[in-house]
Amino acid sequence: MRRVAIVGIGNGKFGIRKDASLRELAFEPVKECLDDAGISLGDVDSMVTGIASDEFSLAFQPSAQIHDYLGFNPKPNFRVEGACASGSMAVRTGWLTVASGIADVVLVVAAEKMNEVNTGVATEILGRAGDSTWEYPFGTSFPGYYAMIASAHMDRHGTTEEQLAMVAVKNHHYGMMNPLAHIQKEVSLEMVLNSFVVAHPLKLYDCCLISDGAAAIILASEEKAKEISKKPVWITGLGCGTDTLGLNERRDLTTLEGTVFAANQAYKMAGVTPDDIDVACVHDCFTIGEICAYEDLGFCKKGEGGKMIEEKQTYLDGKIPVNVDGGLKSKGHPIGATGVSMSVEIVKQLREEAGKRQVKGAETGLSHNIAGSGQAVAVHIYQRD
Amino acid sequence: MRRVAIVGIGNGKFGIRKDASLRELAFEPVKECLDDAGISLGDVDSMVTGIASDEFSLAFQPSAQIHDYLGFNPKPNFRVEGACASGSMAVRTGWLTVASGIADVVLVVAAEKMNEVNTGVATEILGRAGDSTWEYPFGTSFPGYYAMIASAHMDRHGTTEEQLAMVAVKNHHYGMMNPLAHIQKEVSLEMVLNSFVVAHPLKLYDCCLISDGAAAIILASEEKAKEISKKPVWITGLGCGTDTLGLNERRDLTTLEGTVFAANQAYKMAGVTPDDIDVACVHDCFTIGEICAYEDLGFCKKGEGGKMIEEKQTYLDGKIPVNVDGGLKSKGHPIGATGVSMSVEIVKQLREEAGKRQVKGAETGLSHNIAGSGQAVAVHIYQRD
Repeated sequence: MRRVAIVGIGNGKFGIRKDASLRELAFEPVKECLDDAGISLGDVDSMVTGIASDEFSLAFQPSAQIHDYLGFNPKPNFRVEGACASGSMAVRTGWLTVASGIADVVLVVAAEKMNEVNTGVATEILGRAGDSTWEYPFGTSFPGYYAMIASAHMDRHGTTEEQLAMVAVKNHHYGMMNPLAHIQKEVSLEMVLNSFVVAHPLKLYDCCLISDGAAAIILASEEKAKEISKKPVWITGLGCGTDTLGLNERRDLTTLEGTVFAANQAYKMAGVTPDDIDVACVHDCFTIGEICAYEDLGFCKKGEGGKMIEEKQTYLDGKIPVNVDGGLKSKGHPIGATGVSMSVEIVKQLREEAGKRQVKGAETGLSHNIAGSGQAVAVHIYQRD
Repeated sequence: MRRVAIVGIGNGKFGIRKDASLRELAFEPVKECLDDAGISLGDVDSMVTGIASDEFSLAFQPSAQIHDYLGFNPKPNFRVEGACASGSMAVRTGWLTVASGIADVVLVVAAEKMNEVNTGVATEILGRAGDSTWEYPFGTSFPGYYAMIASAHMDRHGTTEEQLAMVAVKNHHYGMMNPLAHIQKEVSLEMVLNSFVVAHPLKLYDCCLISDGAAAIILASEEKAKEISKKPVWITGLGCGTDTLGLNERRDLTTLEGTVFAANQAYKMAGVTPDDIDVACVHDCFTIGEICAYEDLGFCKKGEGGKMIEEKQTYLDGKIPVNVDGGLKSKGHPIGATGVSMSVEIVKQLREEAGKRQVKGAETGLSHNIAGSGQAVAVHIYQRD
């Protein structure tokens, strides 16, 4: 199997980006990652685009807007979609492209411009990522799906609203250290607990943002990577899992089986265990998501996720720092872009370029990205030389 | 590079399928291709889903409906999209998955249920595959894009309306021999020429259908293919190309640069030339599309596509039989499914299982699938042992 490295990274500013169209958003990190790699678009063999929704883009085949605007044609490009995990599915596809031997240098770009539509419409679109026959039509929105997961977790494992809120406090704290974050604002436990209820037990500050943004990376074969980069970061494990469409079909609401399956695949492929992970970006679209991720990724035992955040084990100086870039909670969640943005953050950490939020001596990283309420999940493992 | 074979094929009935939902449509060819390969879903490592539009599916993340309905979870699945070439991009991604070594047996399924919306809405959705800033908003629909290509071809190369019509006559003729075809009806030159004008010079019978349907294949590594199948068909060449978003940016409307680029990549990879192709499925969403394909794929010189159909060189007993399954014109064009359906037809031909439409002794086949009006193109080359 050919080894594949990330040799260039770029991440645009996340936020409400009324100043840029989808294609302009995508251009920013592409330029940045090419500059970072020290190559030009002419050196790139192939491209993969991650975008979650036609409807946010107000287009059909939105990937064509991006290759056209970059001037990448006539070289290959197509779109990969896995809802909120579209970015990681695009990274996976880029990896496959290099590993297969069909290309040596691949650009992976992912973008979403969610604020093209208003929040109500966005909530409608996102709700249809769940079971659009048996759940969504009866009023279940995205916060609703995760509220059911949170309620079940509280019931079964004694997780508290305070523990959920602690995830928000941590991630907003680290978002303050990330200039790319959508919201840079410290929040206290009281602020989170006193914010208005979106879907009980989830309150405003338990929910991620509706953001615009884009991120991009350059992947290269071993030979090209050694030529291009002094600090290649290797993707050594890839896992992908799925779960039922509807929550009503799941055996246990508190476990996302797709995460467990994807993580096991990725750990096995990389030959590592959860204990080897030095830094992780996990899918905290809602605070309960991060707690489930701790457990499903094997960072702690099932039911102990609440305790893990309460003991600050996922802070910068804890057992395993998680979402020290601010996470979806504070950095923002332009859904298609999120997975690639996670890859960018892990590369920064493994290159020791993460500034104030640097995890000292990080050698092995993990990203975990969820489509919808777990219908698909991607886990990648990253290692430096 | 690992060799990859198609070891199972399935194709549901194309048509107006009010009897089945998207997930039910997808189930039909999946069962058929598993039966054809003689394996069960438990033997499949990974899955890729090709679907073109969220809006036709009335869902976000439509691929999750399919893996859930199949019961494929927790194993990997995500969606690949390249508008009307989504099926071929999914085949490409399935090939990458096996060739990379990450999986040995991969299910590629593609489906579209276009008749969930009425023809007017479908035309709106499809129109947005073009330039949704500078062309579509000013009234350009999909027939409009191809009408401009046809007008330019007539102007520059002397192609006639009769020659366009001859493509329809041929494809409807062969559609009669394909029980899966949406429309089984012979049409005469006069019928085509006298049908109403959709977008001059394209008339009703120059345009493909708005269809529902699904197709699926099983891909396997060399070792697994030899274990599973007595008649593996190898995908030996893959090409992917792109073009500008808007037609207004193209140097020559009569050439789709994405096709030329993708074909050259695929021929080079397979080590063949256009003369080696024994049978081809090309993208005849409009009759002019097939004429451009003859030229851009190198089956004839530029400008001689009209002559090629006039001389019946692409009939079953001609120089190179094209679209003898009826093509998009008569078999139908459930946009996401089309590319996989092309793979299914080529495999039938190379296995000599195509019945009345069999190309005698076919050893090398080609499929050519276009996204939109050429924004992305996939070309695959297939060879039997």
